[in-house]
Amino acid sequence: MADEAAFSRTSSLSRDADPVFLMHRGGKIDVCPSVDVPDRAALAMAYTPGVARVCSAIADEPELASEYTWTGNTVAVVSDGTAVLGLGDIGPAAAMPVMEGKALLFKKFAGINAVPICIDVTAVDDVVRVVTALAPSFGAINLEDISAPRCFEIEDRLRAALDIPVFHDDQHGTAIVALAALRGAARVVGKELSAMRVVVCGAGASGIAVSKILLSAGVGEIGVADSKGMIYHGRDGLNPVKAALAKVTNASGFAGAPEAALRGADVFIGLSGATLPVDALTRMAPGAIAFLLSNPEPEIHPEIAREHVAVVATGRSDFPNQINNSLAFPGVFRAALDVRATTITENMKLAAADALAGLVGDDAAPDYVIPGQFDDRVAPAVAAAVAAAARADGVARR
Amino acid sequence: MADEAAFSRTSSLSRDADPVFLMHRGGKIDVCPSVDVPDRAALAMAYTPGVARVCSAIADEPELASEYTWTGNTVAVVSDGTAVLGLGDIGPAAAMPVMEGKALLFKKFAGINAVPICIDVTAVDDVVRVVTALAPSFGAINLEDISAPRCFEIEDRLRAALDIPVFHDDQHGTAIVALAALRGAARVVGKELSAMRVVVCGAGASGIAVSKILLSAGVGEIGVADSKGMIYHGRDGLNPVKAALAKVTNASGFAGAPEAALRGADVFIGLSGATLPVDALTRMAPGAIAFLLSNPEPEIHPEIAREHVAVVATGRSDFPNQINNSLAFPGVFRAALDVRATTITENMKLAAADALAGLVGDDAAPDYVIPGQFDDRVAPAVAAAVAAAARADGVARR
Repeated sequence: MADEAAFSRTSSLSRDADPVFLMHRGGKIDVCPSVDVPDRAALAMAYTPGVARVCSAIADEPELASEYTWTGNTVAVVSDGTAVLGLGDIGPAAAMPVMEGKALLFKKFAGINAVPICIDVTAVDDVVRVVTALAPSFGAINLEDISAPRCFEIEDRLRAALDIPVFHDDQHGTAIVALAALRGAARVVGKELSAMRVVVCGAGASGIAVSKILLSAGVGEIGVADSKGMIYHGRDGLNPVKAALAKVTNASGFAGAPEAALRGADVFIGLSGATLPVDALTRMAPGAIAFLLSNPEPEIHPEIAREHVAVVATGRSDFPNQINNSLAFPGVFRAALDVRATTITENMKLAAADALAGLVGDDAAPDYVIPGQFDDRVAPAVAAAVAAAARADGVARR
Repeated sequence: MADEAAFSRTSSLSRDADPVFLMHRGGKIDVCPSVDVPDRAALAMAYTPGVARVCSAIADEPELASEYTWTGNTVAVVSDGTAVLGLGDIGPAAAMPVMEGKALLFKKFAGINAVPICIDVTAVDDVVRVVTALAPSFGAINLEDISAPRCFEIEDRLRAALDIPVFHDDQHGTAIVALAALRGAARVVGKELSAMRVVVCGAGASGIAVSKILLSAGVGEIGVADSKGMIYHGRDGLNPVKAALAKVTNASGFAGAPEAALRGADVFIGLSGATLPVDALTRMAPGAIAFLLSNPEPEIHPEIAREHVAVVATGRSDFPNQINNSLAFPGVFRAALDVRATTITENMKLAAADALAGLVGDDAAPDYVIPGQFDDRVAPAVAAAVAAAARADGVARR
């Protein structure tokens, strides 16, 4: 019953009988006191007049804020509601249940306070201005469900403006976990990443970020397709982000629909929300890998895909090999807050992927290329690796 | 020990031994899950894919947001750090301990989630723009510790822009409690408010708001002084807010220092942070009332003042008759959220004051003109009265 409700996009149940709506009534998170104020004396320490001494100390030494306020363990989950799940631009108010869910995961997997902030502006300048203004209230910023290509400029500008980490999880969380899963799958099929040709369908936030991290990780060749077909240098109508990607991908010069590029390819990564004809998989190289990451409906049903390729992964929790951002962001932010990182570097993301892949290690199998979402080892392992990378990159403040 | 620490502005203790700093380590609030997600099935309801159905429902019917997200019970406590306690413009990061303390009180006294939002902008346009952008995330906005006269324009513009309550607590919280205490004190000395002449020292956020609510409540005559002396119609250097106040106050035309106006006055209300010579009290009318509200140092030591007037109140918890905002804002916001008020009207504030005064009632005595901060009756009584006033004023959405 609960499972059925969870995976259905629609329900014939009234909201009063629907377990999903019942769970959401009143929201999914609360603000709770972490200190006890049973009497006047305690209140006079937690609030006026006692609190004035703490305020004065922070005014004198700003770095004390992360120690004597909750900001040192608190992340803003910021969305403008323009690209929520597969629902698209549903606006900030309707995005809130997702952001609350994310806050739940931050606490559950990493002990981090996360505050959902749904903002009623969409122009890039406005989003940057609002999030910049909020920065003193948080130890890091998780951008969420912001549409491409705006998300790229928003993140770039916020990273330049702020001295706390800014991380667009739809990009980098997905990229980290996809890379980790690819390392696991590569072990299963006995190939090196450097010898692989990868086709990524989808050039939105996650498609671009997955392509970039695979390039950083040394994948042999990558071709990326958007809704108009393969992206190549000089193609008409490329936005700046796609144009930049075109220069470093698709060395073979594929054009048109991605099916041609898939012929003989080693890896298919679907992030477009479109469906793919199953034929396309049958023409891939032996030992092919298919990551069918569109949610909630994968590009091809995973059980059908599994008949034609060696490894299948999806974004769904009801099939093996779930490529889920919650494997990455809790540990990444845990580390970033713990070391008071000024930013999140490429090496920190690569380290997170390596840590995830390391947990699978020699146990890699067709149905186990990535750890499960409830594997307790995940967040600590990711956090340790990311913290070490932050120190190595000189972005740790402690 | 704890008491001493609480009331001291400075401490010779190291932070590691100072109970105030120890209490603040890691902050005073947390975000906690309010639903349990023990397994994949629960997570698939609280987060993707199940959550999509809740998002879609809110996109279709925006009013569902207050029911199926935490926003219906969540307030933003917003400060730009320009007028923090008696410390002045210490900036947003240093203001955070106060805002966390406020969040603590919201939960403790009214069961409301409050999120401290310290913003790194101070221009009126920017503050209005940022808070407006945040509105979808919250059920109401508590403005806090924003300097005058900016606070007046900021609040006015936000009230006009938003359909959720916006309440600058330094103004209206103080005003509500001061009016309630004055009703209690009036009973003690056997005077009607309409027969009283009141001198308010301080024309910042709280001084202006107290003066306005006393006018609404029908106090006989009010004179207000700022740092340049009594405010009168036509005086040089009045900002628009003071100029407007000058037109409806100081009918007697006092000019210069407030001491002259205090001669024969019934009530002194100090909100300026300045000291007052004790002589000024001795020349007041018989049965005089002195509210010495500067914090943490009252204008005159309350025990000395008590020798010369019939009733003394302060802002401090270690003397009788504490005029503390926490008597008002929890119940006011509880009601505003409960009835989904679109705004907080003058009648709602007057109703809050009347409810507080009603709790004292016939028990009024020189040392009991206002309920205590830990009186459990307070928030429910205030909330009931404010909700009724909201309905009477037609600003309740349910």
